[in-house]
Amino acid sequence: MTASFYPPQRTLMGPGPSDVSPRVLGALGRPTIGHLDPLFVQLMDEIKGLLQFAFQTRNELTLPISAPGSAGMEACFVNLVSPGDTVIVCQNGVFGGRMKENVQRCGATAIMVEDSWGSPVSVDKVQAAFAAHPEASLLAFVHAETSTGVRSDAAALCALAAEHDALSIVDTVTSLGGIELLVDTWGADAVYSGTQKCLSCIPGISPVTFSPRAVQRIASRDQPVQSWFLDMQLIMGYWGGSTKRAYHHTAPVNNLYALHESLVMLEEEGLAQAQQRHRRNHNALVAGLEAMGLGMAVAAEHRLPQLNSVIIPEGVDDAAVRGALLQEFDLEIGAGLGALAGKTWRIGLMGFGSSERNVIRCLTALEAVLGRYGASINTGAALAAAQASYGDATSVD
Amino acid sequence: MTASFYPPQRTLMGPGPSDVSPRVLGALGRPTIGHLDPLFVQLMDEIKGLLQFAFQTRNELTLPISAPGSAGMEACFVNLVSPGDTVIVCQNGVFGGRMKENVQRCGATAIMVEDSWGSPVSVDKVQAAFAAHPEASLLAFVHAETSTGVRSDAAALCALAAEHDALSIVDTVTSLGGIELLVDTWGADAVYSGTQKCLSCIPGISPVTFSPRAVQRIASRDQPVQSWFLDMQLIMGYWGGSTKRAYHHTAPVNNLYALHESLVMLEEEGLAQAQQRHRRNHNALVAGLEAMGLGMAVAAEHRLPQLNSVIIPEGVDDAAVRGALLQEFDLEIGAGLGALAGKTWRIGLMGFGSSERNVIRCLTALEAVLGRYGASINTGAALAAAQASYGDATSVD
Repeated sequence: MTASFYPPQRTLMGPGPSDVSPRVLGALGRPTIGHLDPLFVQLMDEIKGLLQFAFQTRNELTLPISAPGSAGMEACFVNLVSPGDTVIVCQNGVFGGRMKENVQRCGATAIMVEDSWGSPVSVDKVQAAFAAHPEASLLAFVHAETSTGVRSDAAALCALAAEHDALSIVDTVTSLGGIELLVDTWGADAVYSGTQKCLSCIPGISPVTFSPRAVQRIASRDQPVQSWFLDMQLIMGYWGGSTKRAYHHTAPVNNLYALHESLVMLEEEGLAQAQQRHRRNHNALVAGLEAMGLGMAVAAEHRLPQLNSVIIPEGVDDAAVRGALLQEFDLEIGAGLGALAGKTWRIGLMGFGSSERNVIRCLTALEAVLGRYGASINTGAALAAAQASYGDATSVD
Repeated sequence: MTASFYPPQRTLMGPGPSDVSPRVLGALGRPTIGHLDPLFVQLMDEIKGLLQFAFQTRNELTLPISAPGSAGMEACFVNLVSPGDTVIVCQNGVFGGRMKENVQRCGATAIMVEDSWGSPVSVDKVQAAFAAHPEASLLAFVHAETSTGVRSDAAALCALAAEHDALSIVDTVTSLGGIELLVDTWGADAVYSGTQKCLSCIPGISPVTFSPRAVQRIASRDQPVQSWFLDMQLIMGYWGGSTKRAYHHTAPVNNLYALHESLVMLEEEGLAQAQQRHRRNHNALVAGLEAMGLGMAVAAEHRLPQLNSVIIPEGVDDAAVRGALLQEFDLEIGAGLGALAGKTWRIGLMGFGSSERNVIRCLTALEAVLGRYGASINTGAALAAAQASYGDATSVD
């Protein structure tokens, strides 16, 4: 007989899932109701409104896809790309590579614009790609690269797409709720995100929003979308406006309770306040890490406050340190991914997990473990540096 | 400001989601851990083993897709169908039609075998379809049609596919955990299910299993699977055996806590015992409904015990009755779907919801409401008939 599973209480400071708020876990476990229940339909409407707020958009087609962020990515590509299309794809980390896969599996051509892992997307290179490929009908890029902790200039990239009559597909999995994200101001056309990062919600749902231009392109397709499950015209029929809702699939009812609660919390705090909190905790963490003698992998002006790439000191056993943090402190930090595997750690300060408590916990645990694994670090300085950073922030903010 | 959402406590006796066990809701709300946490990896292994038990299979490739049943359906089709293939698709309700959509979106040809809604798939017609289309490489059918409450002969249909060197794709969304499902004995090749029916779990996850023959066909594809998210070769890399797990997507951690708990409960009860409970409660419900003077839409030998299609009496307002049951009794029953819309109700007795308590609750509520809406029913007989049925069952079982 298999026993029930009781997870430990971890502190999740990796690249996500991040710490889920107890309020969200509480909502998640409430009694399931039917996915066509009138009260559930009201909940769906509220979620649409709250997502419009979080994305800063009036896009009518704004809703959560009933699957993880990679399905949200695929929803954007399969609905907007047709066989034979040319798509400019920016890659400066793992997720640009996944976008390329999506483009190719739609029977289209991906023109790759490559930047090094740890750098933002080069707007100049994208400009050059449009000049070389005037037929390109889409530009795809990652706003906040989860694999490296880099922010790219979404406003400039979306503007460039619009100038060239192309639509933009923007990955905001790690940005939503953590840093400025202005879908309408930027003119972003198809935007997908995830729930398990700065929304402090469980993994498994992908909020998306499509501009009227994107909806128009979907409506004028001459071939059906290759995915039935992710066909936005069918999903619209279920989530859509005032008319009778057409059954498409069974909505993940309890997950949507959780998403609703996490968005209610974001609304209560305010977008600007949430972003400020992410910056303040990031500054304190970096102050502490640098006081310890550790270096950051990303230049200051491109860093994501919610995901901090730290250079692993020479001679330190990556896996052993992460293992000790998990076993002894119940603290999860992330490994480097792809080109940065073994070279960086990724320390998340996302959503509910972006707190002074977690900054202090991480710095003290890291200091305790690193010394043991032969890193030459400065001991005893990190905590004071972080606290000084909070003091500065209090007087400035 | 938007308020938190507190759902009412409904009794879910529609076609799903069904009542979720409090044990499963409790597991769902436990603290989130990382999707690469060693303890989570152990949980994944246990889930694979428990799903092998539930499906009665030794298939190595047995795991939950991180999305609803319709994504599980799509996973089977996009991995096994290549452009130009011929697929025999059986339709005797809504979900055969969805299979046809899937085949066509894979660039293949669907040969439809149609049976009336409320009848099982005709094995003879499938035999004839294979004779007319010897090139067919797949047979797809629904074991337990959720839209009508009909069981088809999965053993005979899978055998027919094997005889013709075709693989079988079997929809077991509503059968898993409720009626006999013998993946290995039948030789079914690709089988998908859902969590929100007879597993008493929340909606949003789709267990699947693929036979070695199906895995072989996937491995020998000469074109990539059109969906990146549902590409089983990539998903295998994450869920796979003893080797290092490759990151594919972030698993829906809390949903998998819930699935694990629901499977632990099934293991504790035993498959045969769970099936017997579904039959016993079905018999009592039917005895009560017939004593009330209501008729069943499906012939007795083809009925699913977990989903009961009842003929709506002449002159009764379908929506008004369902609305009154929901408003006054917090009791959800399902409307008819497609060809049966307005003609039948669907009363689910699934998983945790298949209980004497729910049978009694449904019969008494229905009797109270139907009289008010002008149905000429026999009053006062239903409860006794149901209780007599339980009495018979106790002496027989």
